[in-house]
Amino acid sequence: MLKVGIIGASGYTGVELARILSSHPEVELTVATSRKYAGQPLSEVFPSLRKRVDLLCENLPADELAERADFFFTAVPHKTAMDIVPPLLAAGKKVVDLSADFRIRDVAVYEKWYQEHSSAELINEAVYGLPELYRTQISEARLVANPGCYPTSITLGLAPLLRKKIIDPATLIIDSKSGTSGAGRGANVGTLFCEVTDGFRAYKVGGTHRHIPEIEQELSVLANTSVEISFTPHLLPISRGILSSMYAVQQGAKTDKDLQDLYENTYKDEPFVRICPAGTFPATQYVRGSNCCDIGIKTDQRTDRIIIISAIDNIAKGASGQAVQNMNLMNGFAETCGLMGSPFFP
Amino acid sequence: MLKVGIIGASGYTGVELARILSSHPEVELTVATSRKYAGQPLSEVFPSLRKRVDLLCENLPADELAERADFFFTAVPHKTAMDIVPPLLAAGKKVVDLSADFRIRDVAVYEKWYQEHSSAELINEAVYGLPELYRTQISEARLVANPGCYPTSITLGLAPLLRKKIIDPATLIIDSKSGTSGAGRGANVGTLFCEVTDGFRAYKVGGTHRHIPEIEQELSVLANTSVEISFTPHLLPISRGILSSMYAVQQGAKTDKDLQDLYENTYKDEPFVRICPAGTFPATQYVRGSNCCDIGIKTDQRTDRIIIISAIDNIAKGASGQAVQNMNLMNGFAETCGLMGSPFFP
Amino acid sequence: MLKVGIIGASGYTGVELARILSSHPEVELTVATSRKYAGQPLSEVFPSLRKRVDLLCENLPADELAERADFFFTAVPHKTAMDIVPPLLAAGKKVVDLSADFRIRDVAVYEKWYQEHSSAELINEAVYGLPELYRTQISEARLVANPGCYPTSITLGLAPLLRKKIIDPATLIIDSKSGTSGAGRGANVGTLFCEVTDGFRAYKVGGTHRHIPEIEQELSVLANTSVEISFTPHLLPISRGILSSMYAVQQGAKTDKDLQDLYENTYKDEPFVRICPAGTFPATQYVRGSNCCDIGIKTDQRTDRIIIISAIDNIAKGASGQAVQNMNLMNGFAETCGLMGSPFFP
Amino acid sequence: MLKVGIIGASGYTGVELARILSSHPEVELTVATSRKYAGQPLSEVFPSLRKRVDLLCENLPADELAERADFFFTAVPHKTAMDIVPPLLAAGKKVVDLSADFRIRDVAVYEKWYQEHSSAELINEAVYGLPELYRTQISEARLVANPGCYPTSITLGLAPLLRKKIIDPATLIIDSKSGTSGAGRGANVGTLFCEVTDGFRAYKVGGTHRHIPEIEQELSVLANTSVEISFTPHLLPISRGILSSMYAVQQGAKTDKDLQDLYENTYKDEPFVRICPAGTFPATQYVRGSNCCDIGIKTDQRTDRIIIISAIDNIAKGASGQAVQNMNLMNGFAETCGLMGSPFFP
Repeated sequence: MLKVGIIGASGYTGVELARILSSHPEVELTVATSRKYAGQPLSEVFPSLRKRVDLLCENLPADELAERADFFFTAVPHKTAMDIVPPLLAAGKKVVDLSADFRIRDVAVYEKWYQEHSSAELINEAVYGLPELYRTQISEARLVANPGCYPTSITLGLAPLLRKKIIDPATLIIDSKSGTSGAGRGANVGTLFCEVTDGFRAYKVGGTHRHIPEIEQELSVLANTSVEISFTPHLLPISRGILSSMYAVQQGAKTDKDLQDLYENTYKDEPFVRICPAGTFPATQYVRGSNCCDIGIKTDQRTDRIIIISAIDNIAKGASGQAVQNMNLMNGFAETCGLMGSPFFP
Repeated sequence: MLKVGIIGASGYTGVELARILSSHPEVELTVATSRKYAGQPLSEVFPSLRKRVDLLCENLPADELAERADFFFTAVPHKTAMDIVPPLLAAGKKVVDLSADFRIRDVAVYEKWYQEHSSAELINEAVYGLPELYRTQISEARLVANPGCYPTSITLGLAPLLRKKIIDPATLIIDSKSGTSGAGRGANVGTLFCEVTDGFRAYKVGGTHRHIPEIEQELSVLANTSVEISFTPHLLPISRGILSSMYAVQQGAKTDKDLQDLYENTYKDEPFVRICPAGTFPATQYVRGSNCCDIGIKTDQRTDRIIIISAIDNIAKGASGQAVQNMNLMNGFAETCGLMGSPFFP
Repeated sequence: MLKVGIIGASGYTGVELARILSSHPEVELTVATSRKYAGQPLSEVFPSLRKRVDLLCENLPADELAERADFFFTAVPHKTAMDIVPPLLAAGKKVVDLSADFRIRDVAVYEKWYQEHSSAELINEAVYGLPELYRTQISEARLVANPGCYPTSITLGLAPLLRKKIIDPATLIIDSKSGTSGAGRGANVGTLFCEVTDGFRAYKVGGTHRHIPEIEQELSVLANTSVEISFTPHLLPISRGILSSMYAVQQGAKTDKDLQDLYENTYKDEPFVRICPAGTFPATQYVRGSNCCDIGIKTDQRTDRIIIISAIDNIAKGASGQAVQNMNLMNGFAETCGLMGSPFFP
Repeated sequence: MLKVGIIGASGYTGVELARILSSHPEVELTVATSRKYAGQPLSEVFPSLRKRVDLLCENLPADELAERADFFFTAVPHKTAMDIVPPLLAAGKKVVDLSADFRIRDVAVYEKWYQEHSSAELINEAVYGLPELYRTQISEARLVANPGCYPTSITLGLAPLLRKKIIDPATLIIDSKSGTSGAGRGANVGTLFCEVTDGFRAYKVGGTHRHIPEIEQELSVLANTSVEISFTPHLLPISRGILSSMYAVQQGAKTDKDLQDLYENTYKDEPFVRICPAGTFPATQYVRGSNCCDIGIKTDQRTDRIIIISAIDNIAKGASGQAVQNMNLMNGFAETCGLMGSPFFP
């Protein structure tokens, strides 16, 4: 059994990691940290874990942490992660970092959108943890930068089109909608129940969301040219789920049948990517609680555009599920181990 | 007191009409029809109306109906409306029709997207009931075609830009999200609570929604050129509300300040259109239960696009509220009469 | 026009007061206070109020406050209210206090459940603001203690039975369920969207909720004997609404018809209390956004118990709506003025 | 691998069975029936199952059905089940029936609350499938009557007190609240999203819900005397979850500590029953998607009553999860096999 630790266990990605790992046959969760809840059972912070995860939250220095597990998930905010990861690697541990700190390959871009980077030397080593694109590199990595939730839904949705140059990347418009768990578990008025329920809004309008450089980095690799997107995130009155609606002008006429075949072929061996039957489209409630990414595709014959819709569970495939998928690859487990549960519906 | 009738009172637009009219100082609701609930008090169908609206649902032929009121709202499905409206007009009544039957000025377009039209001769006479654009004509009309919910949110959002030719209409992408009341009160598995809650999906993907010809008709008038749009509707797990996110490439550089001024000036005397302060954007929960349309606007300086976000309550400004606004105009009442209630929040 | 002030305008009862008052024909809202948002327009705190309420939040000492309005609502937490109210009264103003500070007639009971009372001399003068029970006294009062939300739903539901001694008060079990707005607008993890949505829980189990002494006080008056209840509140994943399910053993056999008649007769002239037709029961969605209290009643013939179900909107009839009803009485306005809007459904 | 069939796969208990069985290591789902969707892939009816369950819905006569699997779940309405089960048993198969048809041991009681019973001879043989009470009998049964959702939550909550005669059963009041999936997947106006969301109501008030005889049967066995209850169900705006609040007068004073110890001892070896730490109580969101039943208990020292709160997921422990638990017992698998996943939160 691999000994695994969660650093930052009291957020929503923390509890989702604990939930997935509690049923994972190859690992044992041996340490969970939380500054705020140190000394309390994790199952008091999250009563859902009662009789399933029996662990105290702790607040430990890096060296003690390293002794407690062989593999770590860092589920802490960006900037915090860049200081926690180096000593773990130095102690010979492997890490999946769920923050943004090691996702951007160009440190100047990172520093423009975030802040100064204290561990820039690790950026080159870190592998971007989208297994459907970087499976081999992930399996050899000791540090994996787990992708952002929006970038995961978008990159998987656009990869087949960009690789084949079927769309003009300069025309890409991405309208994404996320469940509220994406805003984290901090106590803010803006995410109170009464502020969110029975409502809907856009936020970070006008190309200002920090996931943009990450999305553009990955789309540029796929398109083999520099891609700039219009990206607008919205807040849904649901806990879990991201649905991205993506629009682009096609280059060369394709039929719906062509596109359907392309997507089905691209992803036919992927256990977590599911292409909707022709004429049907994803819904967040059909991926809820699972590591699946559902994709639907259609041409708009009136306007010569292609529309791609993708859906994931933002804290599963968009965070903790994908992190476990990466852990599986990094440790030689079956990639699907602990992750093949069907989505919850209703 | 104007005697008013609601034809088709047992749907969601019907109950919203009854709610608004129950507080309207210039009218008396004298008849409400429903085939399904004929003989039952309307307040049994909608217990919210108990002690507020005291009326039996009836099922009456056109001639008897005409004797019971001087003004009618037809809140029935398209195709049904086109047969109900002519005898009411013939009897000297005025009508606001909430269906799609008299919205499309080109009967061929109507028949392509809907079905054969049995009252095409009335199409020319009907006035498109968006008061912010057609106030004078509405006040002189005897038949007003109340706009669709999506078209209302979109047309008000884009009017200032299209009139001034600030955006290239060929690049327009409209990503709209509607509350579930828009799907009506029919008993369908797809709109059951458990199918919709905690979820989100697109529908009618690929330029197939029937509001498209209506939207394009109005945008073309504004742009003074033929406009074709990419329009994708989505289903929100909320009762009321539509939020439309609209994207287009700008023609000639504008600053956020220019745009903010343009919108504020365009709508400064409109009681129901509210421009969000610079840098802020609408949310459906801030227009809930009101006749307001909130609009926010911003450039994306990275991609040279303009993003416009608009929000309405789909059964108020998107249907019954706007219908009452039209009734006010058609009868010489103050346009705001019965409609100035602030939105419900939380 | 009566000049009215809201002290503590940035909470949910504050915004609901502002919403109701913005449509009230007899009053003008002249001042709104908030320590946190002082200097900001109230419509920035609550964008729902844009173009409807045009007022800055202020933070004023009592003497300046008193100059700005003739009538005040104190929508602040208990303990804060007891210090704010006296100088307003001393300045000759009338006050409806929405906190708990003047509801409990026995200061010892207050101090046992809350804390020391700094203005005990005002307790005797304050009138408990449930108009259906204390209409005359309210209309003569200068200080009205606006009832709690749970107590309102319970007292109106039980009054007919207790007055007529139809139930044994010692057997009373009250199981109440409240929307989340009742928990206020403070930033707490426990009321975040993701903690509340798609869930349900009891809280303050075992007779510890602070509304208990208030409920027992009023039920004891009605029963003309000391009443002790079992009361358990629960948290609903809705914004607005309280539904109370009440159980008691009957004393002397009553038929459903007897009970229905009793309730209909008791409340037949009350504009805000609506008795459900026999065999039907309230739902919070049928009172949403209104000042209504709906009540349904039935015997359980198998167990000789009577079940009473009542529903209100907790921030309308349970707080701000009732506060305006009291203001109307205290100022000689029609009691229903500004409050007769039908509930919002859907 | 045990070959398993689901009869009636297109309802919510059907899809939950398919979800659980898709991850169950000892079984293979070989047949799924649905009259309505015969010929369609089950994953088209429930896209959540795509790439996870690969099976067509079929409509088969009993003899063909029997050839397709060795074990059956009948997830059909009562009355339908009583005709489907006998031929399966006759063919040597084992069955867990999720309907009410074999739960009531006294056929006269069944026929009073439901309708005539066509297979009364099987009633004696059927074992009531609550493993925490009837584990041994279940493991030897060929027909198990899977308990109702409300009865499961109530029986597990009250068993320790009734067995020890700590409460007076004549004073039992049970106020239960269920998620909307309990109302099934039929297309009814009453369970449309817009009718349920942001609302709450009681139904079947006055001792008329059909689960009452089942609850009383099991409570009477536990109390060793005839028990009659007051039971009121309510409809929650959530998909999954039942929370039951139960009240009774205690016989002989108990401390909270006594009760806590009693419950912890009673259930300490039960993998699916979790006693909340003293002073804390269950929430449906902490059992969502799991086979857990959480219970909290407290005295109300003011009124001498005991309050017990229990929570389950109504379609997991309240239906399909418990059905799989029974299947495990009936086939010699580990009782927890396929069921130990932690609840989903958030």
